[in-house]
Amino acid sequence: MILSIEIDKKHQTPLYRQIYRQFRHQILSGDLVSGNRLPSSRQVAEQLGVARVTVTTAYEQLQAEGFVVFRVGSGTFVADNLSLTTSDGSIDRSRYEPAFSNWGRRVLAAQSRTASRRGSRPLIDFGFGRSFPHIFPYDIWRLLLARYLSTDDTMLSRYGSVAGFEPLRQAVADYLARLRGVNCMPEQVVIVSGMQQALDILSRLLLRDGDEVLVETPGYVDAFELFRTFGAHLTPLAVDHDGFPVERIPASSQARFVFVTPSNQFPSGGVMPLARRMSLLRWARQSGALILEDDYDGELRYSEHPVAALQGLDSHGQVVYLGTFSKVLFPALRLGYVVLPEALLALFIKAKQFVDRGAPTLTQAAVADFIAEGHFERHLRRLRKEYGHRRQILIGELEKYMPGRFNYSAVEAGLHVMLYLPPEYDERKLIREATAAGIGIYPGGPYHLGKPAPPSILLGFSGLSRQQIAEGVKVFAEVIQRAST
Amino acid sequence: MILSIEIDKKHQTPLYRQIYRQFRHQILSGDLVSGNRLPSSRQVAEQLGVARVTVTTAYEQLQAEGFVVFRVGSGTFVADNLSLTTSDGSIDRSRYEPAFSNWGRRVLAAQSRTASRRGSRPLIDFGFGRSFPHIFPYDIWRLLLARYLSTDDTMLSRYGSVAGFEPLRQAVADYLARLRGVNCMPEQVVIVSGMQQALDILSRLLLRDGDEVLVETPGYVDAFELFRTFGAHLTPLAVDHDGFPVERIPASSQARFVFVTPSNQFPSGGVMPLARRMSLLRWARQSGALILEDDYDGELRYSEHPVAALQGLDSHGQVVYLGTFSKVLFPALRLGYVVLPEALLALFIKAKQFVDRGAPTLTQAAVADFIAEGHFERHLRRLRKEYGHRRQILIGELEKYMPGRFNYSAVEAGLHVMLYLPPEYDERKLIREATAAGIGIYPGGPYHLGKPAPPSILLGFSGLSRQQIAEGVKVFAEVIQRAST
Repeated sequence: MILSIEIDKKHQTPLYRQIYRQFRHQILSGDLVSGNRLPSSRQVAEQLGVARVTVTTAYEQLQAEGFVVFRVGSGTFVADNLSLTTSDGSIDRSRYEPAFSNWGRRVLAAQSRTASRRGSRPLIDFGFGRSFPHIFPYDIWRLLLARYLSTDDTMLSRYGSVAGFEPLRQAVADYLARLRGVNCMPEQVVIVSGMQQALDILSRLLLRDGDEVLVETPGYVDAFELFRTFGAHLTPLAVDHDGFPVERIPASSQARFVFVTPSNQFPSGGVMPLARRMSLLRWARQSGALILEDDYDGELRYSEHPVAALQGLDSHGQVVYLGTFSKVLFPALRLGYVVLPEALLALFIKAKQFVDRGAPTLTQAAVADFIAEGHFERHLRRLRKEYGHRRQILIGELEKYMPGRFNYSAVEAGLHVMLYLPPEYDERKLIREATAAGIGIYPGGPYHLGKPAPPSILLGFSGLSRQQIAEGVKVFAEVIQRAST
Repeated sequence: MILSIEIDKKHQTPLYRQIYRQFRHQILSGDLVSGNRLPSSRQVAEQLGVARVTVTTAYEQLQAEGFVVFRVGSGTFVADNLSLTTSDGSIDRSRYEPAFSNWGRRVLAAQSRTASRRGSRPLIDFGFGRSFPHIFPYDIWRLLLARYLSTDDTMLSRYGSVAGFEPLRQAVADYLARLRGVNCMPEQVVIVSGMQQALDILSRLLLRDGDEVLVETPGYVDAFELFRTFGAHLTPLAVDHDGFPVERIPASSQARFVFVTPSNQFPSGGVMPLARRMSLLRWARQSGALILEDDYDGELRYSEHPVAALQGLDSHGQVVYLGTFSKVLFPALRLGYVVLPEALLALFIKAKQFVDRGAPTLTQAAVADFIAEGHFERHLRRLRKEYGHRRQILIGELEKYMPGRFNYSAVEAGLHVMLYLPPEYDERKLIREATAAGIGIYPGGPYHLGKPAPPSILLGFSGLSRQQIAEGVKVFAEVIQRAST
């Protein structure tokens, strides 16, 4: 037989390993089949110009793993029962094609809709949900992490609690009661790997194929997509400046749950007043729907006191409160929390155990100390000041360059502004031209369900410096200017 | 009206906030209903002995949130539309009871089976899957984390890549190719929050109600429980010392997938030889089943070279390879990885996006550097030495105190030993008595499916010092001694 082995003496992989791998490959690919005799180690060594021991080491490895057998006096042979040939003896090179569950098929459909939506990163990116690295006290964070990184501490050498690190649950419960008006015991707080996970687990536990879910439009499109993977039917209600219009819920609604952002409607802005909150609770009580309260940035109010959570008004265990550290600490942390009513608590924790056994202990411990030692509230005050300024600059520059051309919510809150433009503008075209000018702005269209949406643009300001905001708006104004001439 | 407000002047909560909260509570609980007039601020101030401004501040907060309205000249009234009374005017105090999805109902059943299984922690705990803190180089780990904790670095201020931090995917792919015989590109590696998450996502994508899943018995009981939440029907095959008995797969099997631990059968020990691996691949090819290869501790072999992964033998994209850092770094890290065939890759990543948007960036970056800079392989060598010694001590002490009383796998690998005892022993009774003597040992029963299992005990040695192992075995031997007399 002709030996088709090649070696590279300069490569970092040991020579015996190169020889081993190539014989292995030839056996697995069917070039060498059961019963074939390998050339003697002497022959191989001569042809490749290597020491004979190099070849015998390779052969021994092949033998140890069962690819070849040595027969005394006759040589080295490919072992039996290794061939992957089809019944007619040819090599089967086809690829496996799996079948999917209903959920899998819906995720597949969502995946093909969103595939390859990537471009280069813009110079000035008004993307939503960034945090601004220069504001976060990384020096303090480093010290808090280091506390637990010691061989004297056995905390990291065990699996943590599924529901979350106890001191963090306590710290979150205290914080939520004190500053967000949430009514809860620490046991009701479960730490999750971001709000997305909480929504996913709740949907899995509650949604059945064809179930109705009431949502806001415009609204949190990632939640819409998620609910649809469960076969949910979405009923969107158009929000007004007071958020979700409870009085317009159809009398025929059979919704399993309603997903709302009462503290600061996402993405259009607006706060749900108390009377509407009470109506929503009454409606839920009568209809049997669960309320998911997404309080993604309730801490970030720049003019008045934050509005107390809907959850704190509920006395029937009908509201699930969802919060996240992504906006107020940093997104890559991947930590959020959920406050659950008694009827869902043990079940949610068990589900979390099936899903991933709980969040990493180290970051939870650091966040717990960050809150308990007052760094969190100090950081929040700083964020409010910094983001409040940024929002003022954004609004100020917009008004300067294009006065009266757009509407937006007057509520001074959040990490972005949603601009509604006059109907003659083409949202997609504006985005393309801004991109060409190096500015990342984002279409409002995907956040809207149902009726055609007015042109709208989402401008996140939390990841940019004041100067970048001013520069970015100037370029954006030029794009708008060109589009209207 | 009689004022039922009480304040605590020594409490850290400001007085105005105490007054605000109590009125708020009375309104929400229905003690004060729409149209009721609140006592004047002067009256309240007098009765409580506080400054009048304290009461007006509380009233202003109630008004700002919409609980009360001021009417000039007539006073402060509970706002309209706040009552939560039922149609007959009484207060509704019932609790919300949600209905669940099929998955939710199965999780609920699993939850009620396992509830309240907690006791105090034993003095010497032979629990499985611990890591030993004194072996892990926390000083290096601290330095690696600190690298990325700086305000100059914007990495943490953005959401990370859903599929995982690129350099970590690259490092894992290199490592798996070099040391585990896995055949993959970095793009095929997806970073997950532990192996449990990978199994959950794969099950969600693939399993349909009533689907058959082939599993090993004894086997990984957490996976069994998980598959069952999807309505899967488990077909267990009893393993032998060569692991999963491929030749005993029923001809009638319609399995959607088969879950195996070929490198070190969990929990009984044993390595699947090459010929059997090839048979499994051939069977999967013919039957259309997907193979889930759980390589939870393939790195931890104490006598010979680790066995190459099943995935590396596959040329049809029919094997999903699952690995974890829990065993070789530390469990509280919550990081694992999965190597996916092309046909599942994009779908799995999209599913991961729905599930939690990706793992935390910081720990991923630290693990990437830990691998790329050689710390990982150095740590593995140290683990092999340390755990190898611990296993020898465990086996040596067992043989010393109770020679010939038990069977176990001779493969020197893993973090535990599974002992099979003669049939006259009562597994549960041994556990109870060991617990009473301060020793945590674990029953083999739950790992077995189908036929009644022989009495067996699982002894994890990775979280204990050599001295603790020796002491623990001595006490365990006394328990066995008493049980057999």
